[in-house]
Amino acid sequence: MHVRRRASFIMGRVSPGSVSRHGDTQRETGNAGYNKEARKNKYLLPAENGEKVTRLFLRELLNILLAYINKSQNRSSKVLDFHYPHQLKEGREGFSLELPDQPENLEQLLVDCRDTLKYGVKTGHPRFFNQLSTGLDIIGLAGEWLTSTANTNMFTYEVAPVFILMEEVILKKMQTFIGWSEEEGDGIFSPGGTMSNLYSVLLARYHFFPHVKTEGMHALPRLALFTSAHSHYSIKKSAVTLGIGSENVFLVKCDERGKMIPAELEYSIQTAKGKGLFPFYVNTTAGTTVYGAFDPISDIADICENHGLWLHVDGAWGGGLLLSERHRTKLRGIERASSVTWNPHKMMCVPLQCSAILVRKKGLLQKCNQLSAEYLFQMDKHYDTSYDTGDKTIQCGRHVDVFKLWLMWKAKGLEGFKAQIDHCLENAEYLHCKLQNRKDFQLVFQSKPEHSNVCFWYLPSYVRSMPPGTERNRDVHVSKVAPKIKAKMMESGATMVGYQPLGDKVNFFRCVFSNPATQKADVDFLVDEIARLGSNLSHLKYEPNQGV
Amino acid sequence: MHVRRRASFIMGRVSPGSVSRHGDTQRETGNAGYNKEARKNKYLLPAENGEKVTRLFLRELLNILLAYINKSQNRSSKVLDFHYPHQLKEGREGFSLELPDQPENLEQLLVDCRDTLKYGVKTGHPRFFNQLSTGLDIIGLAGEWLTSTANTNMFTYEVAPVFILMEEVILKKMQTFIGWSEEEGDGIFSPGGTMSNLYSVLLARYHFFPHVKTEGMHALPRLALFTSAHSHYSIKKSAVTLGIGSENVFLVKCDERGKMIPAELEYSIQTAKGKGLFPFYVNTTAGTTVYGAFDPISDIADICENHGLWLHVDGAWGGGLLLSERHRTKLRGIERASSVTWNPHKMMCVPLQCSAILVRKKGLLQKCNQLSAEYLFQMDKHYDTSYDTGDKTIQCGRHVDVFKLWLMWKAKGLEGFKAQIDHCLENAEYLHCKLQNRKDFQLVFQSKPEHSNVCFWYLPSYVRSMPPGTERNRDVHVSKVAPKIKAKMMESGATMVGYQPLGDKVNFFRCVFSNPATQKADVDFLVDEIARLGSNLSHLKYEPNQGV
Repeated sequence: MHVRRRASFIMGRVSPGSVSRHGDTQRETGNAGYNKEARKNKYLLPAENGEKVTRLFLRELLNILLAYINKSQNRSSKVLDFHYPHQLKEGREGFSLELPDQPENLEQLLVDCRDTLKYGVKTGHPRFFNQLSTGLDIIGLAGEWLTSTANTNMFTYEVAPVFILMEEVILKKMQTFIGWSEEEGDGIFSPGGTMSNLYSVLLARYHFFPHVKTEGMHALPRLALFTSAHSHYSIKKSAVTLGIGSENVFLVKCDERGKMIPAELEYSIQTAKGKGLFPFYVNTTAGTTVYGAFDPISDIADICENHGLWLHVDGAWGGGLLLSERHRTKLRGIERASSVTWNPHKMMCVPLQCSAILVRKKGLLQKCNQLSAEYLFQMDKHYDTSYDTGDKTIQCGRHVDVFKLWLMWKAKGLEGFKAQIDHCLENAEYLHCKLQNRKDFQLVFQSKPEHSNVCFWYLPSYVRSMPPGTERNRDVHVSKVAPKIKAKMMESGATMVGYQPLGDKVNFFRCVFSNPATQKADVDFLVDEIARLGSNLSHLKYEPNQGV
Repeated sequence: MHVRRRASFIMGRVSPGSVSRHGDTQRETGNAGYNKEARKNKYLLPAENGEKVTRLFLRELLNILLAYINKSQNRSSKVLDFHYPHQLKEGREGFSLELPDQPENLEQLLVDCRDTLKYGVKTGHPRFFNQLSTGLDIIGLAGEWLTSTANTNMFTYEVAPVFILMEEVILKKMQTFIGWSEEEGDGIFSPGGTMSNLYSVLLARYHFFPHVKTEGMHALPRLALFTSAHSHYSIKKSAVTLGIGSENVFLVKCDERGKMIPAELEYSIQTAKGKGLFPFYVNTTAGTTVYGAFDPISDIADICENHGLWLHVDGAWGGGLLLSERHRTKLRGIERASSVTWNPHKMMCVPLQCSAILVRKKGLLQKCNQLSAEYLFQMDKHYDTSYDTGDKTIQCGRHVDVFKLWLMWKAKGLEGFKAQIDHCLENAEYLHCKLQNRKDFQLVFQSKPEHSNVCFWYLPSYVRSMPPGTERNRDVHVSKVAPKIKAKMMESGATMVGYQPLGDKVNFFRCVFSNPATQKADVDFLVDEIARLGSNLSHLKYEPNQGV
C-alpha cells in the first residue's frame, strides 16, 4: 500500500516548501471553502469561473519549478538522488507511479510533481557532464513553456502562422552561417539529430533516384554509403530503416584523433564499386560524439565532387561552432555540403528537442516527401500554401521546436551565443591542460581538444607505476575502473560524467561541456571527485584466460 | 525599421496588462536599480544571485501565459487574429521576427512572447474545430512545463529514471485496454502518429525478414502492403521512406461510410500476389481522419490470419475510445493486432506531442532497431540496462512525451477520460442531429457518427432548390463554397473548422470534437456562423468546359 500524502494548497504566495511531502499538513488558511474547491481538479479551467483555481494551481507549480531551477543551479545540491528501478517502482515515500481509476486532487498532483523532479537528474546542474545536451537556459525554458501553452502543430500556416515564419527566419540564418548562397537552402526542424541524419540519406537517395518514391529500392542498384568509424550510429540506423542495409554502410578508417582519413574514403569507395555497389552518399562528422573530432570536410568534398556523391555534414554536435569566429574554421568546407545536421539543443544549450536538417537544394525536401493529401493540405486556401510545411516532412504533425531557439536568439543575440560557445571550449582546454599535469589521469589523445570533448582514463594507484600500454590498459579494464567509479558517482550524486570503450580503447571517461553555467571550479571538482571515488578501488589483475 | 517597444518590468505581482505593447511605458516602481538590472537577461540564472531576476521574469511570463489561457477559454475572444505571411513578416506593430546580433532586454522578450501568442491560433478555444488535436488541458500543460524544466532525454534510465518507469506503466496500461495478455506487449512513445505508423511497417518487415537489417531491401521479395482508401497518408509515406515504394501500397476500397470492405482486401491481396508481390502488412484504421470510420478489425484479422499477414491498427485518432465502455466495441478485434498506433494527443486531449506505438510481440522493437552503440548504451552499468530504451527506437535522443499523460491520468483517473471522451462523441451526435433538420446543410453521410467526425456541405440559397446529386455538387464546387466560407471565417476569427474534398465528394466541412470544453452552444454557434458567412456567396454555375 502506498502512503497517500497531502499538501496544503494555499491561496496566494506560498513558498515552495509549504507543499509538504508527508502526513496530513492540511493547513486551512485564507478562504477555507475555496481551498476545499481548489483541491478538486475539476474546478480548473475550462470549468466555469475556473480562472482562480487555474491561476492558483499554476502559481504553485511555478513555485515548485522555481525551487527546482534554483536547486539545479546550486553547486551544493546533488546532481541526482539515485534509485534503482525496483526502488522507484515500490513507491518511495508514497510516490506511486500507478494510474488510478478515480481522480487525485490538485494537492496530490503537486506532490507528484515535486517527487518526479526529486528522483530525476538535474541536467541543468553545472556539474552534469554526462550528455552532449546539458544546461538549462531560462529563456529557452520560457520559450518551451510558451510553446506548450500555444499547443499547436507545424503542419500548416493556418494553425501555426508565427512559428512557421520563425522557422523560416531561423533556418535562413543557419544557412547563412553554413555559407550557402541566397538562392540555395531549405530545411526543417526534426525530432533529433538521428532523424535529421535520416533525412539526409533519404534526400540523397531521392536526389539520385527519384523513382524510388514510387517503385522502392528494388528499382535501384545496390547502394553504398560512407561514414567514419567514429561517426554517430545514426547513419547506420538510417541505412537499416531506409532499407539499404547495415552491411552497405562502409565505416571509413580514422586517424588517431578520430578524423576520417580521406585516402581511406577513396579506398572504401573503390572497394564498394568493386563489389558492384553504387556509392551515393558520404557523411562527414563535425564534432564526433566521443572524441569531438572534425572530419576534414574540404578534402572529403573534393572526393565527393570527383565521384558525384552527396556530401552530408553531421554537425549535430559541432554545428554550433559556426557561430564562433574563433572556432568556425574547424568546419571549413561545410558550404560545399549538400545537407547539414545541426542540433541547437546541443552546443547552443537550447532545451530538448531542437535539431535542424538543412538542405542545399531548394524544393528537394518537398518533392521527396510530399504526397499531397488533400484532406490536409488544400491548395485552394486563401493564403500562399507554400507556407504549409507538413508535406515536406516524413512526419505529419510536427512539434514546435523553433520558438525557444528564436527567443534565445533574441535574448542573447549572436554575441551571446558566441560567448557561451567559446566559454565551453575554454573549459575543455582547461580540463585538458589540467589532466596533462596529473599522474593519476591519462589523456586518450594528447592533442588539444577541437571541440569540448575531453577523453581520459583514471589510473588507480596500483597501475600508475606501470608503463602506458596494453598491459596497463588490460588491468584498467579488468578492474572495471570506469564502471566502478561511475556507479559510486551515481550513488554519491555530486556530479555525472559518461564513460565508454571505443575501438581498442578500454572504458574511458568522456567529459563534454555545453552548459555555460559550468566554471573552472566545477572542472576542478570533477577531477577531484573522480580521484576520490577511484582512490580505493581494488586491483584485479588481468588473467590471460579472461579475454578483454 | 521596426518600432522598438518596451514594457515595464515590475517587481512583484503585476497584472498581465501592465506589460505594455507600445511606447515608452518604462515605469520605474519599487526598486528602480533592480528594475534596471532585471532588464538585462544576463542577470538571470546561472548568474550569481540570479534567483531573483529569474523568479521575476518567469512570474511575468506566467502572467502572460495565464492571460492567454483565460482568453483562449473565453468564448467572447477570437480563436485567431489572422494575418497573411507578408503582414507578419513586415512586423506588425513592431513585432520583428528578425534575429539580432546584440541581446534584447527581458522586457522586450516578454513583449515578444505576448505578440507571438497574439498572432497565433488559440487551439484550446472551445470553438476551434480545425484539427483532431484540440483543447488545452491545464494538468497536461503543467506536465509539459515540468517536462521542459526537467529537460532530459528518454534514451537511458541513467538520465531519465522516473520518466522511463512512467512510460513502462502507461504503455502497460494502454496494452491492457487493447486486450493483450500479461506476457505480450511492448511499445514506445514516438514523435507523432505518422512515425508510429512508420514503426509498424518497419517492425512487420523485420518480423518476416530479419536479414533486411543487414542486407537491405534487395535481399527481399517485392513487398506489398494494404490500407484503405480512406486511411491516413502516413502508411503510404512509410512505404516511400522505408524503400518499399508507393506503388506497392494497395488502397483497398471502402464502403460509403469509409470502412474498408474485407472482400476488397481479399481481392487486393490476390491482385498483389498475381503481380508477383509479397503481401506482408495490412493497416486497418480505427477512426479515419475525415469520416471517423472504424474498419471492421475482426473480419480483417481473419483475412490476415489466413494469409499470415501483420495486422496493424492505426488508432491514432480512435484509440482513445478504448477507454469508454460505451464506445470501445467499435474497436472489436483490436486484441488480434500485431501493432497499434494510439495518439493520446488526439482523443485524450493531451498536449502535443504524445503518440504511442504498441507492439504485441515482446523484444521485437529492440531487435529491429538496436545497433548497440557502446558509447551510448554500456552494458556494464550498475543497474538493469534493459531500462535503457534508446536502442529500441529509430531516434537516439527522444523527447519526454509521457509525463503530461501520466499526470493527466492521475488527475482525471480512468473515469475522467471516459467522461470527456463520451462528452466529445455526444457533441458529434448533437451536431449530426441538428444538421439533419436543416435545409441549408447536407450531411456527407446520413448514418450516425461513429467517432466525433461530422462531415457536411453548406448549401448556399441558390442551390437549395436543386435536387441532391452531381449537378448540385458541381455548383457547390465551382462556387468554391467551402474555401470561401473558410477564408471569411479565418478573417472573422470567431471559429475554425476544416474542409477538404474526398474521392468524388467536392469540398465539404469536417467538424471534429476532441476538446472537452466544447459545449452544445458552441456547436450551435458553429452552424450559425457557417450559415452567416455563407449567406451571400455569389453563385457561379458550372460550365461544361471548366472541369471539376
